[in-house]
Amino acid sequence: MPNERARGIITPRTLRGFNDLLPDEALLRGVLLRRIEDTFGSFGFQPISTPALEYVEILKGKGGEEPDAGLFEFRDQGGRQVALRYDLTVPLARYVAEHEGVLSFPFKAASIGLVWRGDRPQRGRYRELIQCDADVIGAVGPVVDAEILQLVHTTLDRLGVGEILIRVNDRRLLDAFFSRLGVLDRRLETLRSIDKLEKIGSGGVEAELQAGGLEDKQVAAILEFLSIGELPTTQARFEAVQEIVRGHGSGDEALEGLREVFDLLDAAEVPPSRLSFDPSIARGLAYYTGMVYETALRDAPEIGSVSSGGRYDDLAGLYTTTRLPGVGGSIGISRLVGALGVGGIGGALREIPPFVLVAHPRSERLTALAVRTATAVRRELGARVELYPMPRPHKKQMRYAALRHAAVVLTVDEDHTVRIKDMASGDAVSAPPGEVVDLVRGYLLNQAGE
Amino acid sequence: MPNERARGIITPRTLRGFNDLLPDEALLRGVLLRRIEDTFGSFGFQPISTPALEYVEILKGKGGEEPDAGLFEFRDQGGRQVALRYDLTVPLARYVAEHEGVLSFPFKAASIGLVWRGDRPQRGRYRELIQCDADVIGAVGPVVDAEILQLVHTTLDRLGVGEILIRVNDRRLLDAFFSRLGVLDRRLETLRSIDKLEKIGSGGVEAELQAGGLEDKQVAAILEFLSIGELPTTQARFEAVQEIVRGHGSGDEALEGLREVFDLLDAAEVPPSRLSFDPSIARGLAYYTGMVYETALRDAPEIGSVSSGGRYDDLAGLYTTTRLPGVGGSIGISRLVGALGVGGIGGALREIPPFVLVAHPRSERLTALAVRTATAVRRELGARVELYPMPRPHKKQMRYAALRHAAVVLTVDEDHTVRIKDMASGDAVSAPPGEVVDLVRGYLLNQAGE
Repeated sequence: MPNERARGIITPRTLRGFNDLLPDEALLRGVLLRRIEDTFGSFGFQPISTPALEYVEILKGKGGEEPDAGLFEFRDQGGRQVALRYDLTVPLARYVAEHEGVLSFPFKAASIGLVWRGDRPQRGRYRELIQCDADVIGAVGPVVDAEILQLVHTTLDRLGVGEILIRVNDRRLLDAFFSRLGVLDRRLETLRSIDKLEKIGSGGVEAELQAGGLEDKQVAAILEFLSIGELPTTQARFEAVQEIVRGHGSGDEALEGLREVFDLLDAAEVPPSRLSFDPSIARGLAYYTGMVYETALRDAPEIGSVSSGGRYDDLAGLYTTTRLPGVGGSIGISRLVGALGVGGIGGALREIPPFVLVAHPRSERLTALAVRTATAVRRELGARVELYPMPRPHKKQMRYAALRHAAVVLTVDEDHTVRIKDMASGDAVSAPPGEVVDLVRGYLLNQAGE
Repeated sequence: MPNERARGIITPRTLRGFNDLLPDEALLRGVLLRRIEDTFGSFGFQPISTPALEYVEILKGKGGEEPDAGLFEFRDQGGRQVALRYDLTVPLARYVAEHEGVLSFPFKAASIGLVWRGDRPQRGRYRELIQCDADVIGAVGPVVDAEILQLVHTTLDRLGVGEILIRVNDRRLLDAFFSRLGVLDRRLETLRSIDKLEKIGSGGVEAELQAGGLEDKQVAAILEFLSIGELPTTQARFEAVQEIVRGHGSGDEALEGLREVFDLLDAAEVPPSRLSFDPSIARGLAYYTGMVYETALRDAPEIGSVSSGGRYDDLAGLYTTTRLPGVGGSIGISRLVGALGVGGIGGALREIPPFVLVAHPRSERLTALAVRTATAVRRELGARVELYPMPRPHKKQMRYAALRHAAVVLTVDEDHTVRIKDMASGDAVSAPPGEVVDLVRGYLLNQAGE
């Protein structure tokens, strides 16, 4: 319906890195988010919610350092320095400190929400994404470490993303190794280089470590340590690492903990093929102090880790003198939606009620009957029922029904009967209004059984 | 666990008008949002998603005028003028213009998301809130007008907010009346004054209209027109308005349309007591051109309208030359959560799976059995099952169970049996692990039946 308005228009566009979701994409994301919420809930995690905007001093912490992610930061109408949150961990830390008195610890928090990242526009990354975090705060030990890993496994399993590999390590093993090697003073830089193993390969890590001033012998030892993850069995890896870290730092304690984690995950029926002890997993973030993990899709390793996290000693030290250790994991729903793509839509559609289209009646006198029919089918059968909103040729309405994957189309006829067309078989019957609900129920059950 | 860190801490706090949700509040909001999503879906509305940040020129339109709501506006790292969206209507307009080629019209959009408003900090209003909008775009007429009102009624009914009153009018009736009165040139100011009737009373409206330069006779006629809504029956109101608008502008067409809307809502079984034709409903927004409505909670009229909307001729005229008429409604979830408060929590809890606590075992040797038990009950019964994350006195764990409204508590004993405590009756039995799922199922069914 173009009209002749002469005035110019504003080009409709979104900011780079910010995406609209078309209806099918939004539907898929919605179904996946519910599965995540439900799975988090099924492990006893409680939902919390924090604002999108926070004081900059809260998000940056004392140092006033810009986080790696880049902040959308500005001065609000009241002159306050504010910014959009770039993750859910800092707001969680602020939250537990602020509400310490009314929360009961250990506190199991499920935090799902948008985060915004202003950096690296050149890499085509999302600047607005949804994070799904689960954290156990105020508790440490193999039982909670194992629970986070079990939760991640169960969640990804329910999302139907195919085979996954969760690679687990403990920061204390790397520390024990660094201590033995005499590079503990370069701990964080070394961890960050190791963290890039997947991206830049062992040659890249070698070059970075050498550039960082490590001796050739140290670099060689590190590369050898990293290659332990290639040994065929978990048992062999544990033994190789034990050999190296024994007697250094908390290495023995960490190894014993990891062994218990693997035993508990076995009790939780996590398939051993989806779990691997990998001493090369480091994670870039400074606050991890124990177990750390990453998760790859076997069929799409190139999209990177779809879930990662670990254990920390002191979540909220910037905001409270209470020491709150804990462990958490995060699931990257935006990456998963991208990875599942159109293939994921079918599975999502199966999870929502069937769609029934009531055609727009041919005469106005029949509209009330059409509304009554739509209302009854919607209420009695819990179906999604749409009364086509305006008069259009029947053929056009049938095309729309196909587009929306309608299970059944209902048409009110001049003689006040209702034609019921089963879109799966193509069968059609006419019936008085009072019999429509039962007939539609039959078709829907039939289609669900197929 | 206070420690002795000497360094200062950052006071944990949120920005004024921005709120954290504690777990029970977040749970309630989550349940309500799902009911809204499901109800929108049950009428065939399709979810869409747009970004939180948009170009300022998109949000402000051509005039560069600040919307009433106040914008959180800033320059991003790339120098672009951007702002947080202040409603979902402008982004929807931009969205349908941008994706015109791939959407099929009429398009029924369900748009649920956060919006941000920077103004009026003094009034203690939310500056971050969730809006839930449903729009039928590319269709006009009584059938779609009635559908939006039926949707609003069904949604609020499913939310369990108690008795509501949806007051409906048509802008064209006011226009016809203004035309007869000779004040059509002051249409928008007059509408805005009328829109304040609820807030400032008829005396206040009278004073505003007089200050605006209307003649006493005109003001008196307007006040009389507004009082038509006090007539006892819908029929009487229709007749009184017909008397006044007959032969002026589109008054007759609008009245005929509204009569059909009321007939269709009757066919849709919306109780007549929840619906009222009220010629004083104006809505402040300039873009409405036909049916308009507002909704009050009978038991809490003071919180204002919990759902409002109406019909517009041209949704996206700023962004496309295609004329897209439509009709939409918006549900204010933040106000509803506030109104339902703690009373709403019980209903929300009934909608989520029962909570089962597995006590932390007394000895480490029993942990695997506890994990196995928790996993089986979670998987087989769909319950929310939490393994208490760390060793604590049993009494303390039982207090936590009560706090979380646990239905059942499971304790693994030294003899490898599991004690099952029914929290409703206080009964407890011990059973071998293999029988736990069936016994717990019995208790849960029993409690659900009560």
